[in-house]
Amino acid sequence: MKTNIKLGLCQMTVSDNKDDNLKKAASMLDECCKLGADIAILPEMFNCPYDTKMFPLYTENLENSKTLSVISDSAKYNNMYIVAGTIPESSDGCIYNTSVMFDREGNIIAIHRKVHLFDINIKGGIVFRESDVLTAGKSVTVAETEFGRVGIGICFDMRFTELYSKMTEAGAKIIITPASFNMTTGPAHWDLLVRARALDNQVFHAAVSSARNSKADYVSYGNSMVCDPWGSIISRADEKEGIMIADIDLKMVNSVRSQIPVNKIID
Amino acid sequence: MKTNIKLGLCQMTVSDNKDDNLKKAASMLDECCKLGADIAILPEMFNCPYDTKMFPLYTENLENSKTLSVISDSAKYNNMYIVAGTIPESSDGCIYNTSVMFDREGNIIAIHRKVHLFDINIKGGIVFRESDVLTAGKSVTVAETEFGRVGIGICFDMRFTELYSKMTEAGAKIIITPASFNMTTGPAHWDLLVRARALDNQVFHAAVSSARNSKADYVSYGNSMVCDPWGSIISRADEKEGIMIADIDLKMVNSVRSQIPVNKIID
Repeated sequence: MKTNIKLGLCQMTVSDNKDDNLKKAASMLDECCKLGADIAILPEMFNCPYDTKMFPLYTENLENSKTLSVISDSAKYNNMYIVAGTIPESSDGCIYNTSVMFDREGNIIAIHRKVHLFDINIKGGIVFRESDVLTAGKSVTVAETEFGRVGIGICFDMRFTELYSKMTEAGAKIIITPASFNMTTGPAHWDLLVRARALDNQVFHAAVSSARNSKADYVSYGNSMVCDPWGSIISRADEKEGIMIADIDLKMVNSVRSQIPVNKIID
Repeated sequence: MKTNIKLGLCQMTVSDNKDDNLKKAASMLDECCKLGADIAILPEMFNCPYDTKMFPLYTENLENSKTLSVISDSAKYNNMYIVAGTIPESSDGCIYNTSVMFDREGNIIAIHRKVHLFDINIKGGIVFRESDVLTAGKSVTVAETEFGRVGIGICFDMRFTELYSKMTEAGAKIIITPASFNMTTGPAHWDLLVRARALDNQVFHAAVSSARNSKADYVSYGNSMVCDPWGSIISRADEKEGIMIADIDLKMVNSVRSQIPVNKIID
């Protein structure tokens, strides 16, 4: 099994024009491919402003999704795995914050609906209530890939250690977290949580944020980041739009798990 | 219920002379009392060198422990809660790495046996195997105090998110971790783990290390630290012997849990 992998993190600026967002995403994915990425990753709500008023207007169902059709085509064309950040998904009258992963042929190999909705009310900081419009997912999500298993969490999910433990128990050696922290929780908690989930589980952890747009209602922190199983930051972006390639070697997972045995799977 | 509490962290240097260690501990506890501490805390293996060869030689049983008698007397004399770091405890032919908590009258109110033994083998770094001589505890430990519930973990336990979650589910708003990280894992992981367990559980987390003794076989990292429920470091020591007083207000626990609701108990 190939253990050297290139992750392509697309820290894109999201606008309120869905077509523009899809063009931007497709263009960044093409660029990831040119840079040799095996797995390209988009941020949370990459096709829609991160705003509860907007989610119902941008929603798509997975069977007939223009957005996912664009991403599937890109995966096939670029012969590259893609974690399609998240989109607002409609299903049976509910809306979910949903991440879909595609293989190199453009087939869906995993669907994760955000389990822990982002309801927050920080004095002098930020108020946001996803639960006003969204429904929570209930499943732990791990995809089978040619590199082994890859877990998927979404943003606020990262605060829940049990969900990340379960992905690890299910065999994940890479965990991918499309996210969009803000200017209150980002500086306070982003580094700490991305690093801690990597170290707790002795996995590679890639957390991919949208770029900071100071004009948006919700200002994203940026700082997309990849941490290794030792909890060290191996790549981090600033706040601006851009692509970051991170080279990882999965052999490090077994190596760290052997050196500090905390009951994680060694194979 | 009183919510303003002074924690007294005793970052003591441990020698290979048990009597000297007990005198040092008693003296530092007296000093904590003079500084107004409500709960004083000693480090891991404060009466014994941190060395698997030494544990069997320094072991005491809880019913007839010279060490704990000294600490109990101090708790009563100083009218102060004390978490007696840890000692090597003998019981039924087994040895445990055990922390005992006393109330202001010198009564035992909690006993925690280290659940996750420190077995580690880091290339170019440190090798240590507690399991060569120690037996693991099996219980989650939370003490009832006049300030509410206080959880106790020991050193390597801190890498196991589930144990800290369980203390929190059992009502802990303060978690105390006597510890002794080393010069490999300390610089790499100490800050990250102490902060992460505070933030994950939205508790105050006091991690108390022995002072660094470069002549010892096992060189302790020091850097005793208190983090608040927001994951911020509110007090930290350097590597030298000394007492650190940290003022905490438990109202912050409910405040953070209300602002970022991640299913923790609010009362």
